[in-house]
Amino acid sequence: MAKQTIPKAAALRLSLYLREVESLLEAGQTKVSSGQLAESLGLTAAQVRKDLARFGPLGRAGIGYLCPALAEQFRRILGTDQLRPVALVGAGNLGRALATYPGFERRGFKITALLDNDLRKVGRQYGGLIVQDIAKLHFVCQRDRIRLAILAVPGSAAQDVADLLVRAGIQGLLNFSPVRLDVPAAVVVSTVALSLELEQLGLAVRLRNK
Amino acid sequence: MAKQTIPKAAALRLSLYLREVESLLEAGQTKVSSGQLAESLGLTAAQVRKDLARFGPLGRAGIGYLCPALAEQFRRILGTDQLRPVALVGAGNLGRALATYPGFERRGFKITALLDNDLRKVGRQYGGLIVQDIAKLHFVCQRDRIRLAILAVPGSAAQDVADLLVRAGIQGLLNFSPVRLDVPAAVVVSTVALSLELEQLGLAVRLRNK
Repeated sequence: MAKQTIPKAAALRLSLYLREVESLLEAGQTKVSSGQLAESLGLTAAQVRKDLARFGPLGRAGIGYLCPALAEQFRRILGTDQLRPVALVGAGNLGRALATYPGFERRGFKITALLDNDLRKVGRQYGGLIVQDIAKLHFVCQRDRIRLAILAVPGSAAQDVADLLVRAGIQGLLNFSPVRLDVPAAVVVSTVALSLELEQLGLAVRLRNK
Repeated sequence: MAKQTIPKAAALRLSLYLREVESLLEAGQTKVSSGQLAESLGLTAAQVRKDLARFGPLGRAGIGYLCPALAEQFRRILGTDQLRPVALVGAGNLGRALATYPGFERRGFKITALLDNDLRKVGRQYGGLIVQDIAKLHFVCQRDRIRLAILAVPGSAAQDVADLLVRAGIQGLLNFSPVRLDVPAAVVVSTVALSLELEQLGLAVRLRNK
């Protein structure tokens, strides 16, 4: 079983393992060795075996791991085996783009509320969601038992909205604002690093050209 | 020096090492051990030492690594020690959000062109960029020696735009469309997985609550 804490890089490997195993399954492969996972993801086989021993004893040395069981176990640890409601705050350009982003639901997340403090936006509809007044945040989060929120507001408003979200019972905040948020220790904040994606792409291009 | 190829997970570690070293530097720490990096990032110390030996022999056992030298070397390998121009295609919600995203420039990337095929958008200005007709893509990319592009168009248009970008000499494509793009082997495509960010956040919240 998963331990109480999983360091950041190990948690990330969990998502990467899941994606790798899913693409193996899509390609019709039902078994995988720690060595193959290691090679695909640029890890040592020892690291992969250590991770898999930690995240669930699902394979045996020399025999390998069953892909469907691995995927199921990874999803269970990640919690993406169930659909969870998410509040999205900010109906600006980014918020509207996220409201219509098709990838969340396939990963176990459904944006069930879109809120903004701009009354000109309230009542408009994006991606099947009607923009609600941010004043309703607490009520909506409590009613729908929403524990996760996406913050897509300008940096200048981010801390105020984060405070509202924390009071509404949000436990995890995906922050798109380039601002460091001050929240209680019990709340997890994850700031999306779009620049990291571009950095990784730039590196891959450099390496191709060498 | 960097090898011809760096596996995906190793490349990602490079970005994570850089961020970790940068935050150590911000906190005033000028030296770091492989053990400390390992612990912060959830890696084994052996993995960190292997990576650092590969990405540049900058430290010695027992003495540790100098943070400024590490940061400089990581940036050099990542290629983010110089500002590189980027073309952004798609001036819809997501494109407009990306055009005004403040995080790219600090990481060595400058969006120098914003293009769209919707003539009603051409001429409008977002984040200091005037939307240009996509018909000018080839000219602009050649003139400004743009090798990286961000694709923020609807999934239905993504492949056509990707083809245009490839013909314009783009070597790396950051794809926000949830579509698998077919490009020549020499072009690197990286699809942004916003769902992975939410998945990681959800996991962190689950672990806090255990």
